[in-house]
Amino acid sequence: VDEGRNRIDWVHRYSPVMNGLVRRTVGDGSLAGKRIAVVVHLEAKTAYLAQVLADAGADVIAAGSNPFTTNASVVAALRDKGIRVVSEAGGTHATWEEELRAAADLEPDYIIDDGAELTMRVGIHRPDVFKRLKGVSEETTTGTARLHAMAAAGKLPFPALTANDARCKHLFDNRYGTGQTTVQAMLMLTNRQAAGAVCVIVGYGYVGRGIAEYLSKLRAKVRVVEVDPVRALEAHIDGHVVGTAADVLPDADFVITATGGMRAVTTPEFNALPDGAILCNAGHHDLEVDVEALATMAQRTTQGATDMVTYHLPDKDLHVLSNGALVNIAGGSGHPVEIMDLTFAVQGLGAHYLVNTPMDPGVHVLPRAVDDSIAAAKLDSLGVTLDAPRSEQTDNHADFIDRITL
Amino acid sequence: VDEGRNRIDWVHRYSPVMNGLVRRTVGDGSLAGKRIAVVVHLEAKTAYLAQVLADAGADVIAAGSNPFTTNASVVAALRDKGIRVVSEAGGTHATWEEELRAAADLEPDYIIDDGAELTMRVGIHRPDVFKRLKGVSEETTTGTARLHAMAAAGKLPFPALTANDARCKHLFDNRYGTGQTTVQAMLMLTNRQAAGAVCVIVGYGYVGRGIAEYLSKLRAKVRVVEVDPVRALEAHIDGHVVGTAADVLPDADFVITATGGMRAVTTPEFNALPDGAILCNAGHHDLEVDVEALATMAQRTTQGATDMVTYHLPDKDLHVLSNGALVNIAGGSGHPVEIMDLTFAVQGLGAHYLVNTPMDPGVHVLPRAVDDSIAAAKLDSLGVTLDAPRSEQTDNHADFIDRITL
Amino acid sequence: VDEGRNRIDWVHRYSPVMNGLVRRTVGDGSLAGKRIAVVVHLEAKTAYLAQVLADAGADVIAAGSNPFTTNASVVAALRDKGIRVVSEAGGTHATWEEELRAAADLEPDYIIDDGAELTMRVGIHRPDVFKRLKGVSEETTTGTARLHAMAAAGKLPFPALTANDARCKHLFDNRYGTGQTTVQAMLMLTNRQAAGAVCVIVGYGYVGRGIAEYLSKLRAKVRVVEVDPVRALEAHIDGHVVGTAADVLPDADFVITATGGMRAVTTPEFNALPDGAILCNAGHHDLEVDVEALATMAQRTTQGATDMVTYHLPDKDLHVLSNGALVNIAGGSGHPVEIMDLTFAVQGLGAHYLVNTPMDPGVHVLPRAVDDSIAAAKLDSLGVTLDAPRSEQTDNHADFIDRITL
Amino acid sequence: VDEGRNRIDWVHRYSPVMNGLVRRTVGDGSLAGKRIAVVVHLEAKTAYLAQVLADAGADVIAAGSNPFTTNASVVAALRDKGIRVVSEAGGTHATWEEELRAAADLEPDYIIDDGAELTMRVGIHRPDVFKRLKGVSEETTTGTARLHAMAAAGKLPFPALTANDARCKHLFDNRYGTGQTTVQAMLMLTNRQAAGAVCVIVGYGYVGRGIAEYLSKLRAKVRVVEVDPVRALEAHIDGHVVGTAADVLPDADFVITATGGMRAVTTPEFNALPDGAILCNAGHHDLEVDVEALATMAQRTTQGATDMVTYHLPDKDLHVLSNGALVNIAGGSGHPVEIMDLTFAVQGLGAHYLVNTPMDPGVHVLPRAVDDSIAAAKLDSLGVTLDAPRSEQTDNHADFIDRITL
Ligand SMILES: NC(=O)C1=CN([C@@H]2O[C@H](COP(=O)(O)OP(=O)(O)OC[C@H]3O[C@@H](n4cnc5c(N)ncnc54)[C@H](O)[C@@H]3O)[C@@H](O)[C@H]2O)C=CC1
Ligand SMILES: NC(=O)C1=CN([C@@H]2O[C@H](COP(=O)(O)OP(=O)(O)OC[C@H]3O[C@@H](n4cnc5c(N)ncnc54)[C@H](O)[C@@H]3O)[C@@H](O)[C@H]2O)C=CC1
Repeated sequence: VDEGRNRIDWVHRYSPVMNGLVRRTVGDGSLAGKRIAVVVHLEAKTAYLAQVLADAGADVIAAGSNPFTTNASVVAALRDKGIRVVSEAGGTHATWEEELRAAADLEPDYIIDDGAELTMRVGIHRPDVFKRLKGVSEETTTGTARLHAMAAAGKLPFPALTANDARCKHLFDNRYGTGQTTVQAMLMLTNRQAAGAVCVIVGYGYVGRGIAEYLSKLRAKVRVVEVDPVRALEAHIDGHVVGTAADVLPDADFVITATGGMRAVTTPEFNALPDGAILCNAGHHDLEVDVEALATMAQRTTQGATDMVTYHLPDKDLHVLSNGALVNIAGGSGHPVEIMDLTFAVQGLGAHYLVNTPMDPGVHVLPRAVDDSIAAAKLDSLGVTLDAPRSEQTDNHADFIDRITL
Repeated sequence: VDEGRNRIDWVHRYSPVMNGLVRRTVGDGSLAGKRIAVVVHLEAKTAYLAQVLADAGADVIAAGSNPFTTNASVVAALRDKGIRVVSEAGGTHATWEEELRAAADLEPDYIIDDGAELTMRVGIHRPDVFKRLKGVSEETTTGTARLHAMAAAGKLPFPALTANDARCKHLFDNRYGTGQTTVQAMLMLTNRQAAGAVCVIVGYGYVGRGIAEYLSKLRAKVRVVEVDPVRALEAHIDGHVVGTAADVLPDADFVITATGGMRAVTTPEFNALPDGAILCNAGHHDLEVDVEALATMAQRTTQGATDMVTYHLPDKDLHVLSNGALVNIAGGSGHPVEIMDLTFAVQGLGAHYLVNTPMDPGVHVLPRAVDDSIAAAKLDSLGVTLDAPRSEQTDNHADFIDRITL
Repeated sequence: VDEGRNRIDWVHRYSPVMNGLVRRTVGDGSLAGKRIAVVVHLEAKTAYLAQVLADAGADVIAAGSNPFTTNASVVAALRDKGIRVVSEAGGTHATWEEELRAAADLEPDYIIDDGAELTMRVGIHRPDVFKRLKGVSEETTTGTARLHAMAAAGKLPFPALTANDARCKHLFDNRYGTGQTTVQAMLMLTNRQAAGAVCVIVGYGYVGRGIAEYLSKLRAKVRVVEVDPVRALEAHIDGHVVGTAADVLPDADFVITATGGMRAVTTPEFNALPDGAILCNAGHHDLEVDVEALATMAQRTTQGATDMVTYHLPDKDLHVLSNGALVNIAGGSGHPVEIMDLTFAVQGLGAHYLVNTPMDPGVHVLPRAVDDSIAAAKLDSLGVTLDAPRSEQTDNHADFIDRITL
Repeated sequence: VDEGRNRIDWVHRYSPVMNGLVRRTVGDGSLAGKRIAVVVHLEAKTAYLAQVLADAGADVIAAGSNPFTTNASVVAALRDKGIRVVSEAGGTHATWEEELRAAADLEPDYIIDDGAELTMRVGIHRPDVFKRLKGVSEETTTGTARLHAMAAAGKLPFPALTANDARCKHLFDNRYGTGQTTVQAMLMLTNRQAAGAVCVIVGYGYVGRGIAEYLSKLRAKVRVVEVDPVRALEAHIDGHVVGTAADVLPDADFVITATGGMRAVTTPEFNALPDGAILCNAGHHDLEVDVEALATMAQRTTQGATDMVTYHLPDKDLHVLSNGALVNIAGGSGHPVEIMDLTFAVQGLGAHYLVNTPMDPGVHVLPRAVDDSIAAAKLDSLGVTLDAPRSEQTDNHADFIDRITL
């Protein structure tokens, strides 16, 4: 409990937007008694979001969005504060399924979700609760895609905000947060050096390019596998070597997946890799590095001194970090506090917006003004002020348009 | 003529996409006899686009999109090839206005425009031609905004493609091309050192951040003035100092504008600057650095050894590069060949698309497939191949959606 | 024992120079029965060096060079291998003093030292052993300075090799190794973000500039405090803000010391810091951040969830990582394996050289050929080959010198 | 004359160290009547050094250190000031030889030299003047090697200062100055893009690594050819691909030489290059890119629109910038003003030191105090102050040394 409180207090210290703008906004009484499930990787930053909502009067249920990322001390601290937590640390995919069902059974009105993991399961297991849901605010790229698919299939009977589409989320979280912490975790877990290492990145989206950027700044030799030609060309022009998996894997020191899909690295890729290669994942699915396929290929496995398993294949050893779960969270402490201060401001204000604004069912984006207010609050906490635009500074369209006569 | 040919031939050497995909596509006969005005900064790369279209049978009219960026030898070489050119090098804003009217009077069917400079003028001076226009393909951010304003005002009676919105344009041209060449031109014209220099960038859009990135990599101390809080926060998190003009100008060595608007730096900013500061512009308007206001403040001016004018103010000297026109083009050779190979592929294929595809009046974006084909052609020229996505790799939405019953 | 073995095995996997060149060289029988004290931070990489020497027949004594950096599992594994270890994990400065005396009492012939910590103590406590010492090979900048001071004072009666002066040591270890791992440890222990953070670095030598480089690449705002004007100017031109402690501390998020001296940050600096600042050290002395002075200023302290102590001062909280010991070793896993493969190759081949080469007392540098052979072995393991210089490629001095007649 | 004056005035504006410390020091009367030959690339910065020395009363002779780097307008302006200039712009190797002999015939007392070009020739052609020489201050790495060779051969009958060894010279000039300006010139002359380009750098010394650093920051794919294994390993760990010329040339876009020797790239390398490759040189010799061999291989050559010649070989075209002379000087404006403010402060204070200090014949280094004073003057001009070291901050060696008894 103490360690958990300690961790949450640390988050509190460096979260000016949560402490100011968010507490002020959600503290207007409108959240009182609303049952909100917070289903994000269950560590200190998520706990602080849960606590801020609880302090604002919400009836918060906390659950982890991944079996490998729940922190025991944080769970203890939340429970000590009277918040219901359905998840335990040290679980498996199976126990996690049960936990999410338990969360569904607690019948939330609103869900702050990650990967739409609880939303999907409520839909499947508790259609009654699903139909009554008043709103969802979704954290990630993967979950956003899922919500759009649900809407397209006519199975989204409530408004969903895609927090990921807020500029204060994806511009910071997906790029800087994941880049720094993924690289940090993979180096920390392996005690290896980035400079000179051959690092293959699979998927060059926001997350992948952030990782590539950090690694190449640390002087690694970055290689990129992509399926989209424009993104592949961006990777080329960013200075990375681009190629097929077959081209770039044979002398890889590290492989990092970030496609948002599954099985980005599977049997053919394992075959192409050299002895001693290290694999990890930064995408939402625990199966981007196909650990199931790897397990069937291996003769035996060894647990490493850190969060790493070595798969002994007939002709080589391959090492997988954090069981293929998001390495920056399961094998590290997740995004930096400052990043989550922005992301959870989007989520907190998103929940407040859902509660207070009548909206049609379907996928929505947080209004730009709310998004801007988060950036402004953060700048304010840094003592930065901005000039306001002056009218003489804009390109005066009326000027010439008036002179066009049709 | 020889020098011009020489320059165009150089462009030809390093333009694999234009040489392959574009020549192949536009060479299908559909452009034969179409009168196309090409109104972009009139130097070798633009000349090559004009030539490729002419070779495909189009009746090309070439004009410069800025009075200070037309290259004499290139004009001579184009004329030698039988292409009509309305612009001359060494002009002023006044002669340029006349040139554009002359272009309007040649009654183009299609315009490949930059800043919508010819499109606007056709609308104003030749409403008859304006109404008959069959399509416009627009190069820049500023022109895109103008076209949207025209559409909103009901004054866009033809389809317009915003080339700038193509991924193969803005992702490369606005970021890498402008970044490299603006920094290069400003350092070349001044023989100054980037490392350690205080560089203030006004406007942190695609162009501004590209410049900031290159400068900070060259170890300059970058400071950013922005009016949009999210972009300001991005600048902060990119490691730059953010502040008001009043905060950051007093010890500036360089000021670079990139707002896309006008008068970003004007009287109050000139007052805040130290003696010896150097100003230049990378945005579309020649008035982002308000040289008109500066001229009225100065007691006299001196022409420098390079493309630079020193304004002697009562208490200090300020130096302006390239009369405040886009410094990378007017004071350098514009974007790198490789970048314009992509940009002009967008423009060339855009013109072909406008000619061959029935479209409603209004603002349109080039179809993603065309955009992708450009990236694929470029990758192909580099010998890069990509893996195709495999079905087992995607997040299977149907899987869970089918299990949700409403 | 298992965990320790596991860790040492991991080092073994990624140490091609130790596995090849070093084992081959030291395995020639010349080390048989030589008593060698290995006194470096006692974790897996050091253990592997100890083991390689033991496998070559040396009678190895292992001791830690710092009270806070000894790893318990590694100690267990070494003992299990039959190597004598005088240090225990979890010690204090007092227990560490005793351990080093115990090492002196074991009467080594040779010392592989770090900071000259054992060499000094042998000199003080066991002058008899000191006079009989056959050679020392020293790891660090601080220890090198100490050996030179001893020589200057006529108190170095044996040959000492300054491993630190080998190019394969300081060019890699001090710059890349420390840079990466210090930044990693400080971010990992605090879950903070580098991008945008104000980081003050005290001391801009090899270590300081490595840290500065890594931090600024992670987009931190780096500020440097130096006392040497040339180095201060280098920091300026590297793009960092340079100033006095009083100038740069007031809004510091992080302070990192790397002066190699002591009390670089003490009472006046603590007074200048803002609430919430985080302090850590990358220099040899545990007192660069003057934790003793800080303890007297604090009303109380709290232990954090990670290796961090919060000092509650009357007007603010300051956080110190790893008790002020080298944060990358005490609060992380030390240098990357690849780096120590080079550094310990220098040490291992240095010990072999001391054993086999008659040398005068005094400070010596490893011959360049040995140094080069390490780099060549590493390149070879990477599959890199080099061209040999051709005679026509050198500036032919004889040519003109012959023509000068005096 | 006006343009030349204009250029020199520009240098004056941004040279705080020359304007302050240097003018103050050399202006003490001791230089009055001393005949000093200034033999450095003859453009505006060198002219300003010549002028500062002339203003201090010296009888200055100016000559260019390379046939391709002399600027006509600057020569005119110097003559207008009454300074004797033996060089003309637009020369060849032959005319340049004559110019240097003319400089020798003017019988200088002191030489500020570059590459020891005049010093060698005085030795060969005017042994009488050579024996009477009172001192030489040498600019570059190549010249320093030559002076050491002369001393070793017993043919250096006067004191020579190796300005290159001053920290305020090589730490800034060779690294930052050359890096920025070489990359700038090569991109400017070719209108090519750095991002994504394959750039082969031959020679990874101070200059080569500066170029590599700048290019890789501009997102080029850097490859390095080296003959020294430690430097090759540094290149590897800096993130570059290292290999033999045969390995790395076949898909090079650019080749840049910086070995300080000759014929680094010659027939076998030309054979390995692809069609369209661009070659340039940043080393002292005009023959690092062996243009003589290339000329014999070519069927014909074409002069490009910029300072570039295309060699048409039977199977491909190769382009050479600036005739293989130092591309940043011959094809650009040389080092940035700020850099030369430091370098020429070293040279100016070096000349003053030679005049005022009795010294033995042989190679000497500028005293560290003079070197430091330059850095301090530059920092002062930037408004930067430094903390002084405090006694409690140093590692107290006496402490333990006193306790060692022998
Ligand atoms: N670890 C963390 O802390 C975070 C993880 N995420 C997760 O990371 C994943 C990626 O997110 P974004 O980069 O924002 O998505 P994105 O959609 O922008 O990028 C994914 C990229 O992967 C490429 N791709 C897809 N399949 C591929 C395959 N088989 N091989 C190679 N390339 C392939 C796509 O073309 C696309 O460019 C998502 O699952 C997201 O939820 C997001 C934020 C933080
Ligand atoms: N030099 C060149 O080769 C190129 C120039 N351009 C031109 O550069 C300009 C900028 O283009 P993008 O960056 O793509 O546009 P953008 O719209 O992405 O960025 C402009 C930024 O300036 C900010 N801003 C506006 N007024 C401001 C003011 N008074 N003070 C401070 N910040 C202000 C805006 O908030 C915005 O973030 C446009 O005119 C565009 O046409 C575009 C491509 C190449």
